[in-house]
Amino acid sequence: MNGNQSIAVVGATGAVGREMLDILAAEGVEAGRVRAFASSRSAGQRLGYGSGEVTVEAFGGESLDGIDIALFSAGSAISKQFGRSAAARGTVIIDNSSAFRMDADVPLVVPEINPAALDAVKSGGAVIANPNCSTIITLMAVTPIHRLLGVKRMIVSTYQAVSGAGAAAMEELRRQARQVLEGQEPTCEVFDQPCAFNVFSHNTTIGEDGYNVEETKMVKETHKIWGDASVRVTATCIRVPVFRAHCASINLTLAQPVRDLDAVREAIDAFAGAKVLDDRAANRFPTPLEASGKDDVLVGRLRLDPSQTDEQGRCWGLNLFASGDQLRKGAALNAVQIANLLGEHAAV
Amino acid sequence: MNGNQSIAVVGATGAVGREMLDILAAEGVEAGRVRAFASSRSAGQRLGYGSGEVTVEAFGGESLDGIDIALFSAGSAISKQFGRSAAARGTVIIDNSSAFRMDADVPLVVPEINPAALDAVKSGGAVIANPNCSTIITLMAVTPIHRLLGVKRMIVSTYQAVSGAGAAAMEELRRQARQVLEGQEPTCEVFDQPCAFNVFSHNTTIGEDGYNVEETKMVKETHKIWGDASVRVTATCIRVPVFRAHCASINLTLAQPVRDLDAVREAIDAFAGAKVLDDRAANRFPTPLEASGKDDVLVGRLRLDPSQTDEQGRCWGLNLFASGDQLRKGAALNAVQIANLLGEHAAV
Repeated sequence: MNGNQSIAVVGATGAVGREMLDILAAEGVEAGRVRAFASSRSAGQRLGYGSGEVTVEAFGGESLDGIDIALFSAGSAISKQFGRSAAARGTVIIDNSSAFRMDADVPLVVPEINPAALDAVKSGGAVIANPNCSTIITLMAVTPIHRLLGVKRMIVSTYQAVSGAGAAAMEELRRQARQVLEGQEPTCEVFDQPCAFNVFSHNTTIGEDGYNVEETKMVKETHKIWGDASVRVTATCIRVPVFRAHCASINLTLAQPVRDLDAVREAIDAFAGAKVLDDRAANRFPTPLEASGKDDVLVGRLRLDPSQTDEQGRCWGLNLFASGDQLRKGAALNAVQIANLLGEHAAV
Repeated sequence: MNGNQSIAVVGATGAVGREMLDILAAEGVEAGRVRAFASSRSAGQRLGYGSGEVTVEAFGGESLDGIDIALFSAGSAISKQFGRSAAARGTVIIDNSSAFRMDADVPLVVPEINPAALDAVKSGGAVIANPNCSTIITLMAVTPIHRLLGVKRMIVSTYQAVSGAGAAAMEELRRQARQVLEGQEPTCEVFDQPCAFNVFSHNTTIGEDGYNVEETKMVKETHKIWGDASVRVTATCIRVPVFRAHCASINLTLAQPVRDLDAVREAIDAFAGAKVLDDRAANRFPTPLEASGKDDVLVGRLRLDPSQTDEQGRCWGLNLFASGDQLRKGAALNAVQIANLLGEHAAV
């Protein structure tokens, strides 16, 4: 962002909204340039902003008049209701919901991966979509490998934190864990089955092909972000009792054989926003606790996949394991990075 | 087992040992036929056995004299020290450790999958190995599909309960969860990093190829149990904060295209010890909480894998998700089933 733009956070009281405010404050955006919107029942609430505070305002049709950039994280319905009309009146919407991601006229952007997608945003008033959290985290780990060796096929199994379902889900995990430890039955409010000490298939709608929406996003968003629908992607998305960082176990089939795992590690470390944590001797690899609160997506367990070795002994596959903070790179940080990149493009 | 055999449980105070006693009691084996062994510091401890009790005896070199069948679950070192010598003196050892699994003269048995491997056990005195928990649970889900369509390649990502590291690990998860909820730093005794609200790479030794022992077991034990080293297997084994049931996300490449997912479901349901739980409408699939305490391995999330569809539209791959009780089918139940099968074979 440039130094005088006004920024709105829509959905400021949510887990992602609060993280957006934290990141804006940490980047030195003065509180006077930031407005925090939420539903009318949160109006008047004060949220920490750096060493100060911002006061939550009720969000409505005219809230964004005069706002340069609005970071939306209040769910698809709010985005659909207000996003395009606000864009038409001159605000750049960076939307964290799934409302517009697959729309042909909406760039779907991970700044380290496809910043050029923002070139289409020529002047004030546009909708830009933030990809889904599990897609961002997976692609931050895999894109440097894709650039080095070419990914032909990607099989992903996720280990997703409850934060993806919001602050209430994080509180549910805490409450249920306490209930189980006290010998009580865990009560379910956000999820329809216990998340504490359990693992379950992602709680999104399931399509006719049996894939839930989270899994379908992984396929379609990968194709759009990489600009290549020929890459074969399949995913199994699973929730685990973790607060705020996602993990992904990833198996790749590559266009070139892997000759040197160190070259793969170097490519990952050279990629902004990704960091190798792959210490076999100490058994230190990416974990959600390590990734929580960090900007970088951690990548480790890098191994040649012997199930993809051909008769000449060439290995065409890799296994890896990644972890990234769902609230930061998976959502809030990526959105703020898009806003910053727009400032550099001088598009807004 | 036939009705007058004497049974010993070696490692009776451990998580698996207690489960073995529970299963023997539930099968109606009278307490008088069962002896419970553990280290000398547990001697004299009384363990529940059905409506009664058994008293723990200190285990030593002559403990198994006169015992027909000994179920070992006291770790590899004890198995190596006492297993073969006891077998030489006439006891059938069913060993839950990894000590003998890959020995050429030792059958590695999942009774529903390769019971014929026990044909080699002709008369009293033998060592039989129980496969590793994550291998058993994965193969219980995949073997019916292998028989129907032929598995050429299998990629497994596990979600493993802490029970695989024993009763102390289950207590560690409980303690750490309490510490985190109370705002304290979790203390680590069993694992070298926190398991509560975290996910980490399996805590076994890592080989030169980067695979940990748990992953290597999945490959080698699958080959031995299926009697086919041509199947390509790769695994990523991960611990999750769950008490006692493992899950596996599995991607298969098949020798025949999948025409009918219902036929796959029928094959799984027709396979003793596996049960389909695949309710897309209700979003009900296998979870560790559902699988805990159950004998069946639950199998669901059955989906054609479109990343393996060829130019003629034939699909050569499947995704699935399985969950099974690590202490039961993953360990104690499988061992008792082997003992029962030996009784039917009248080998001992």
